[in-house]
Amino acid sequence: MRTRAAVALEAGKPLEVMEVNLDGPKQGEVLVEIKATGICHTDEFTRSGADPEGLFPAILGHEGAGVVVECGAGVTSLKPGDHVIPLYTPECRECPSCLSRKTNLCTAIRGTQGKGLMPDGTTRFSMLDGTPILHYMGCSTFSNFTVMPEIALAKVRPDAPFDKICYIGCGVTTGVGAVINTAKVEVGAKAVVFGLGGIGLNVIQGLKLAGADMIIGVDINPEREAWGRRFGMTHFVNPRDVGDIVAHLVNMTKTPFDQIGGADYSFDCTGNVSVMRQALECTHRGWGQSIVIGVAPSGAEIQTRPFQLVTGRVWKGTAFGGARGRTDVPTFVDWYMQGKIEIDPMITHILTLDEINKGFDLMHSGESIRSVVVY
Amino acid sequence: MRTRAAVALEAGKPLEVMEVNLDGPKQGEVLVEIKATGICHTDEFTRSGADPEGLFPAILGHEGAGVVVECGAGVTSLKPGDHVIPLYTPECRECPSCLSRKTNLCTAIRGTQGKGLMPDGTTRFSMLDGTPILHYMGCSTFSNFTVMPEIALAKVRPDAPFDKICYIGCGVTTGVGAVINTAKVEVGAKAVVFGLGGIGLNVIQGLKLAGADMIIGVDINPEREAWGRRFGMTHFVNPRDVGDIVAHLVNMTKTPFDQIGGADYSFDCTGNVSVMRQALECTHRGWGQSIVIGVAPSGAEIQTRPFQLVTGRVWKGTAFGGARGRTDVPTFVDWYMQGKIEIDPMITHILTLDEINKGFDLMHSGESIRSVVVY
Ligand SMILES: NC(=O)c1ccc[n+]([C@@H]2O[C@H](COP(=O)([O-])OP(=O)(O)OC[C@H]3O[C@@H](n4cnc5c(N)ncnc54)[C@H](O)[C@@H]3O)[C@@H](O)[C@H]2O)c1
Ligand SMILES: NC(=O)c1ccc[n+]([C@@H]2O[C@H](COP(=O)([O-])OP(=O)(O)OC[C@H]3O[C@@H](n4cnc5c(N)ncnc54)[C@H](O)[C@@H]3O)[C@@H](O)[C@H]2O)c1
Ligand SMILES: [Zn+2]
Ligand SMILES: [Zn+2]
Ligand SMILES: [Zn+2]
Ligand SMILES: [Zn+2]
Repeated sequence: MRTRAAVALEAGKPLEVMEVNLDGPKQGEVLVEIKATGICHTDEFTRSGADPEGLFPAILGHEGAGVVVECGAGVTSLKPGDHVIPLYTPECRECPSCLSRKTNLCTAIRGTQGKGLMPDGTTRFSMLDGTPILHYMGCSTFSNFTVMPEIALAKVRPDAPFDKICYIGCGVTTGVGAVINTAKVEVGAKAVVFGLGGIGLNVIQGLKLAGADMIIGVDINPEREAWGRRFGMTHFVNPRDVGDIVAHLVNMTKTPFDQIGGADYSFDCTGNVSVMRQALECTHRGWGQSIVIGVAPSGAEIQTRPFQLVTGRVWKGTAFGGARGRTDVPTFVDWYMQGKIEIDPMITHILTLDEINKGFDLMHSGESIRSVVVY
Repeated sequence: MRTRAAVALEAGKPLEVMEVNLDGPKQGEVLVEIKATGICHTDEFTRSGADPEGLFPAILGHEGAGVVVECGAGVTSLKPGDHVIPLYTPECRECPSCLSRKTNLCTAIRGTQGKGLMPDGTTRFSMLDGTPILHYMGCSTFSNFTVMPEIALAKVRPDAPFDKICYIGCGVTTGVGAVINTAKVEVGAKAVVFGLGGIGLNVIQGLKLAGADMIIGVDINPEREAWGRRFGMTHFVNPRDVGDIVAHLVNMTKTPFDQIGGADYSFDCTGNVSVMRQALECTHRGWGQSIVIGVAPSGAEIQTRPFQLVTGRVWKGTAFGGARGRTDVPTFVDWYMQGKIEIDPMITHILTLDEINKGFDLMHSGESIRSVVVY
């Protein structure tokens, strides 16, 4: 069949919207009609050429929602008409990682996915002249129709709006999941969130959900203060207004009883390695945990004195919020429908596929929290 | 009163054994006769002048065992004749840290202890000419008699031999505790231990106790292989015999089912920041935890790509093995008496106080695992 898609032909170039060929689903694969897709920093990391492992030509996009159109041979858990969210972190339930009970990072199709291929080592997309086009993060939601492995699709309730729940395919789950799955924040905790973009705001709403007492947001963009408060942030700090940001945060978290101070949990949602260090060092001696969510520029390294760890701080990270896609994503959709988590105000811009490059511009200018393309 | 002590008069100089004055215990303090004391790397870190926070003149030593001689006013939990192990990490059971349930790093007397003073801000030791001599880590076990806060003494069973259980005051608890309190290693785990000195050997025996399947020891000193095997090490690697140590360890931990590989837990017992990085990076994607135990040279920093954390590895540290001194140290003594943990073969040298400087020489030459001074 043919489908319309935004194709990344070369690193650093705008996407080009065009007709492409799409082969039908093979064994264990599913053809999905994408109804809506968010535009995420990770797409931009690849599009811009900043990711040295980026491959072209490719159809980017990994934050979508849609409907099953056709199932390949052997597919048992889905049928045409099912509503689904594509998963860049699949959940096979059979690999050493899925069976470890310790991680969500399924490795069943990791090798081929990283090369832009379906599990059988080929691509379903091609140019009209036959040139293969690579898949992206196993999803390629910047195409109206896409083919995905069954294990990379979460079946969700049919009454949830595509243009909102697509955000659960990455940003919402990453931020909320970092709080509940990775940090396992407890009621009454004090937390600091660095970077109040889409990820940081979702961390904030996760902290509110978990019952944190103090939710300190940190951003160099003063306009983000109102955004943070909207989702439960209790304090705001602009690092440009204070001298030593670590000392400032440690002071803020002191109590009459606890004169040591420091956050119980901190989250980096900036991708800046200097901020990651601040995030670790502002946590409490003895038990503070810092969670790296942001993706750093290629080659950048984090650094600290090991004394920070020896005196009890813990440095962790999270991918897809520690969530198991097929198991946990449907629950996040339920939570959205129940009003337990908010998404609507974060979707600041709705675009058509033809306007997709505008989504990247809005991201760079800091105007959008999330732009969503609706097909 | 007067007591014999080995005094560190200046950074970088050998200790000098001499008579010193010792004032009696004040409110909340206890006079202890030290019967035996180990010589630890931390003493040498200060003695040598490598620690920029080292203060002189001071009486070093923090790994001792002895008998209560006299209790100051208000002391309720100890009486003369009780056998005790001095605690450089006290346990007040009243401070924010003790009450947090999340850390062993009691902060009740941290400020004064770091300055070489008793909690009232003065010292009990002085030269015969009256010059004050500082305490060290709140213990000063290189003196035959010392004064310590009640909250920094663990009461232990009276039938345990001083020249062995003194080692529980630092090395044993640090190594075994890192496994059971900090890493919480589970039966069947795969672990890598970097550095097979006293700390590493105690980590190994902790891993054996916890039921680990694979206990890989890594040391550049080939003579340490036999030592490791003596305590339960199952595999040995000399980094000088392999190319990329991280890749080598990841390969060793692969199984027919799990072709990703990596240790479930790793421990740095070298204090070398490059080794700390190797220790993190050889752990398993998704869930590997690396525990820093070694104390790095002043100013040295650890470094890695944040991707290591984002893909699920956890970087932690431990001080005094995460053990609460008054609560857990008596249990470690019981375990030693029951044969659950071994100490005797690790005490390779017994010295008199006059021979104490020989203990530092044996440490540097790598001949000793632990030298113990018996009074
Ligand atoms: N780990 C994962 O699974 C995962 C998933 C999705 C996104 N991410 C990453 O999360 C990060 C955040 O994504 P986003 O969409 O929220 O980005 P964003 O650009 O919308 O937000 C980043 C925010 O950080 C602020 N900031 C920049 N430098 C700062 C500094 N020095 N101090 C304080 N604040 C600063 C910016 O003003 C901005 O508000 C990105 O690196 C993205 O790649 C990770
Ligand atoms: N965190 C704590 O509470 C705590 C308590 C006590 C001691 N320590 C620290 O633990 C560390 C170990 O103490 P120890 O008494 O066992 O020391 P040690 O010197 O007896 O043993 C260190 C071992 O590491 C090996 N080693 C050195 N460089 C290596 C490398 N590049 N790769 C592999 N092995 C290497 C040496 O050959 C030696 O066998 C020290 O840094 C000490 O200060 C920490
Ligand atoms: Zn994303
Ligand atoms: Zn899997
Ligand atoms: Zn020690
Ligand atoms: Zn305390």
